[in-house]
Amino acid sequence: MIATALTGMFGLQHPIVLGPMGGISGGRLAAAVSNAGGLGLVGGGYGDPAWLRAELALVKAQTTRPWGVGLITWAIERSVFELALDQCPHAFLLSFGDPRPWAPAIKAAGCRLICQVQDVEQARVARDAGADLIVAEGTEAGGHGGVRATLPLVPAVVDAVPDVPVIAAGGIADGRGLAAALMLGAHGALLGTRFYASTEAQGHANAKRRIAEATGSDTARTRVFDIVRGYAWPGGETGRALRNGFTRRWHGREAELEAAAGSERAAFQAAVRAGDVDTMMVWASEAADLIGRVEGAAEIVARIGAEAEARLRAGAGLARN
Amino acid sequence: MIATALTGMFGLQHPIVLGPMGGISGGRLAAAVSNAGGLGLVGGGYGDPAWLRAELALVKAQTTRPWGVGLITWAIERSVFELALDQCPHAFLLSFGDPRPWAPAIKAAGCRLICQVQDVEQARVARDAGADLIVAEGTEAGGHGGVRATLPLVPAVVDAVPDVPVIAAGGIADGRGLAAALMLGAHGALLGTRFYASTEAQGHANAKRRIAEATGSDTARTRVFDIVRGYAWPGGETGRALRNGFTRRWHGREAELEAAAGSERAAFQAAVRAGDVDTMMVWASEAADLIGRVEGAAEIVARIGAEAEARLRAGAGLARN
Repeated sequence: MIATALTGMFGLQHPIVLGPMGGISGGRLAAAVSNAGGLGLVGGGYGDPAWLRAELALVKAQTTRPWGVGLITWAIERSVFELALDQCPHAFLLSFGDPRPWAPAIKAAGCRLICQVQDVEQARVARDAGADLIVAEGTEAGGHGGVRATLPLVPAVVDAVPDVPVIAAGGIADGRGLAAALMLGAHGALLGTRFYASTEAQGHANAKRRIAEATGSDTARTRVFDIVRGYAWPGGETGRALRNGFTRRWHGREAELEAAAGSERAAFQAAVRAGDVDTMMVWASEAADLIGRVEGAAEIVARIGAEAEARLRAGAGLARN
Repeated sequence: MIATALTGMFGLQHPIVLGPMGGISGGRLAAAVSNAGGLGLVGGGYGDPAWLRAELALVKAQTTRPWGVGLITWAIERSVFELALDQCPHAFLLSFGDPRPWAPAIKAAGCRLICQVQDVEQARVARDAGADLIVAEGTEAGGHGGVRATLPLVPAVVDAVPDVPVIAAGGIADGRGLAAALMLGAHGALLGTRFYASTEAQGHANAKRRIAEATGSDTARTRVFDIVRGYAWPGGETGRALRNGFTRRWHGREAELEAAAGSERAAFQAAVRAGDVDTMMVWASEAADLIGRVEGAAEIVARIGAEAEARLRAGAGLARN
């Protein structure tokens, strides 16, 4: 096993965190990751209370190990926040917005506060808010993110907040990426897309299959999927998704899509329900090259942990006296 | 020392390659990196024969260790290519364009062919061209580059061309980045911006100082500096530079700048000569956060090599039985 501040904090076997992908990281996937020795986080996304209540019940039913929940900070409503905190998660991840209004209640509940940031300045805010862990998320990540890339961002964040353990996210899908993250000074890695292409993930089978087939060059950052769904991201964040017919039609024509969103929305939502991957968003990381098939979450966690451990041992062998 | 296929190929002490930055990596800097145990590459850029002749004479006068030269592939003229090859470099780096017309002559001269690529498909072309080494360059790099990020690109390239050693580039400026690159499966790292901010680099002192002060968030990819200088990059590649008055004025108004370039050029070139960093391009990586001061190249090579070695040894300690 690999021992870091992250594994010590939660008693994990592997320094691997499930990205709380909204509507994808349900209770079943989060529990599977936690049961495999990682830290499973339920993806509360924009905060649908019925979905969240059901998935938090599921994760609690399916694991006795530490687990957590993540919400999109700017979209949090207090009732949903309290619904989540009342379930006594071991970790609460906040991303995209100011964590300070929510941090005191999380800390007072004895829950670990994890802040995900996209640049160095946000990391300083998170540190000042009392974050127990900071996830430095690079632009190569699937789904929403910023503009800084993981490899240079992680050490810059480590240097900026030396007292807070940092977790790397964005572009990591195997043990090589985890081992690299540890070399950069991170205490673990948060993986989204790799777990999207897992048996236990929610999300359509067509989407999982597309991720397994895709390469990183098939992905792009875009706002079109948020525009058609009516989500106004206040920081102008984009989402990295597989390019498809919908992005070819609308990317670069965002103003026209804004105007047409009312009439486009119903058809888009029907495509999502049908698993029409040429229309729906399939959030995916640039690490898609490294994802070859849909697998069980336990197998993914075990393999990545073992591969990272083997890399670390082999790395020391490169250093010769 | 760290031993990899790269260090074995050239007898290096450290798996560190100087990025052949056009007009920055002159003979003095290349020799300093080679003398420190890395591989120094003179940056031939667009191929000014007088500059190249002088700098190749300089590197040969100042080091007896392996060194090399790099050119922008699409801009190569045969006379300049032959001028460089006639000096018997140990390595010839080609980037941005089809290496196949030039590869046979390089190989026939007993010179190692290094191809720098920005995506996986280009890596396959480089492999088929007979590359002895492939540099996988991520978008976080300073200067010209593509859209893929280093952390997920490197292992994808390693998997695509398993028989060719890969070097990581883009976003690496310290031993943490080098150690991370090795974990990803690379055999070393190519660093540009870190060596731009070195005593021996050509380039204005103002530019070096700006890099030492800047952060990665101060950088952006743009075409404006190529437009004003009249360089038409056939692949639409952008250059990552520090944002300044010139980018604020023209970025996003590329068509207008194309039209105005004739009248803007003289003033721009005067600004370059004067070291006016609010107008001139200062190519810089997102790793600028990790560069705190201008230093001698030997000091940079030694520190990065030692830091990477220490990281590798410490990494094995994280793996516990």
